[in-house]
Amino acid sequence: MQMGIVVGRITATRKDENLVGTKLLITQPIGLDGQVLPNPIIAVDTVGAGIGERVIYVTGSMASRAIRNKDAPIDAAIIGIIDSLEGTTLGG
Amino acid sequence: MQMGIVVGRITATRKDENLVGTKLLITQPIGLDGQVLPNPIIAVDTVGAGIGERVIYVTGSMASRAIRNKDAPIDAAIIGIIDSLEGTTLGG
Amino acid sequence: MQMGIVVGRITATRKDENLVGTKLLITQPIGLDGQVLPNPIIAVDTVGAGIGERVIYVTGSMASRAIRNKDAPIDAAIIGIIDSLEGTTLGG
Amino acid sequence: MQMGIVVGRITATRKDENLVGTKLLITQPIGLDGQVLPNPIIAVDTVGAGIGERVIYVTGSMASRAIRNKDAPIDAAIIGIIDSLEGTTLGG
Amino acid sequence: MQMGIVVGRITATRKDENLVGTKLLITQPIGLDGQVLPNPIIAVDTVGAGIGERVIYVTGSMASRAIRNKDAPIDAAIIGIIDSLEGTTLGG
Repeated sequence: MQMGIVVGRITATRKDENLVGTKLLITQPIGLDGQVLPNPIIAVDTVGAGIGERVIYVTGSMASRAIRNKDAPIDAAIIGIIDSLEGTTLGG
Repeated sequence: MQMGIVVGRITATRKDENLVGTKLLITQPIGLDGQVLPNPIIAVDTVGAGIGERVIYVTGSMASRAIRNKDAPIDAAIIGIIDSLEGTTLGG
Repeated sequence: MQMGIVVGRITATRKDENLVGTKLLITQPIGLDGQVLPNPIIAVDTVGAGIGERVIYVTGSMASRAIRNKDAPIDAAIIGIIDSLEGTTLGG
Repeated sequence: MQMGIVVGRITATRKDENLVGTKLLITQPIGLDGQVLPNPIIAVDTVGAGIGERVIYVTGSMASRAIRNKDAPIDAAIIGIIDSLEGTTLGG
Repeated sequence: MQMGIVVGRITATRKDENLVGTKLLITQPIGLDGQVLPNPIIAVDTVGAGIGERVIYVTGSMASRAIRNKDAPIDAAIIGIIDSLEGTTLGG
């Protein structure tokens, strides 16, 4: 999984029928210090996340386990809201 | 999923038989501001996308859920046309 | 799999129900010389790893094999603690 | 899928028994303008591709759909020969 | 699949029980000219590879097809020893 921050929401009228009713959030990966990393992704929200919240997201085929519709073609899902983060910055 | 823009179309006479009849679109990932990112991919169109349109695409094994032929060896599919995008640019 | 070092822990009250009870560790990939590489990930601990320990982690759908709950939407798991590493640095 | 150009062939006597009889081609990803991108991969040829040809290749678990042997541990396969490519270069 | 060179071996006493008995080799990807690329991975050896040998390795869920234990959480496996490589360097 990765740490991310929700930065936007996408509207798409014409889409795969299995995506109807999903909330599609634009999420950018973040580093340990909260710095925003490049390459935003679109993730299906499964925990009621909002813009500006720091979240945990899963990518690849495992993302589909987070939603009820087992036919939906999704490769990213938000599966948690980060409360806190205890850690050490080691650089890198 | 990722945001992309359709930039071209590929013709291939000699190909896997399960790809016959698919529309193969060259799609480049885009960032929040619409800027085009490197490394175009080839995605199977499932929503009637055209060149120049901003789309949502899925990659990996989940892409195969977007098409009817469950034997097709595909790892990318366009699954939505972006109407609008509300968001905040956080840099990165 | 990749070599990593555990650098932190994440707390998330609101999360996928299949993640309840898992220990979510922030792990950074490391190189042959132990140098820390960018892009930390969040991995489910399955071997009792602690902060500062060098670990082996697996990513993608195979990570879910490391935990008992086969419905959990996880894409990274710590599956070993590195005792020692014999090798040659070839640069790169 | 990605666009690539076949640049070589690999011979391996000692190999997984499910790879016996496969043709393993070194393929480099290419961009819209045909420029060669870094990081060559090894793909199983399924369409009779030759060195110098521009091809479509699929990666990940879906690659295994392109071959008959469903036990073969492959993560990349050439599934088409590019005839032509109509498109617009948008930079990136 | 990718071309790599075996550069080391990892010992891990505390590990997933399905990894017991596997040989875990640190492998670095290599380019066409044999130059070593960054980001070493840990791969399960299935062909008797040794340090310094040039190998073919597979990543992702397909790697698990190369070993007998179908419950092992592995995402990389060495599946061939490179005898020779005929090719053209196109740069990139």
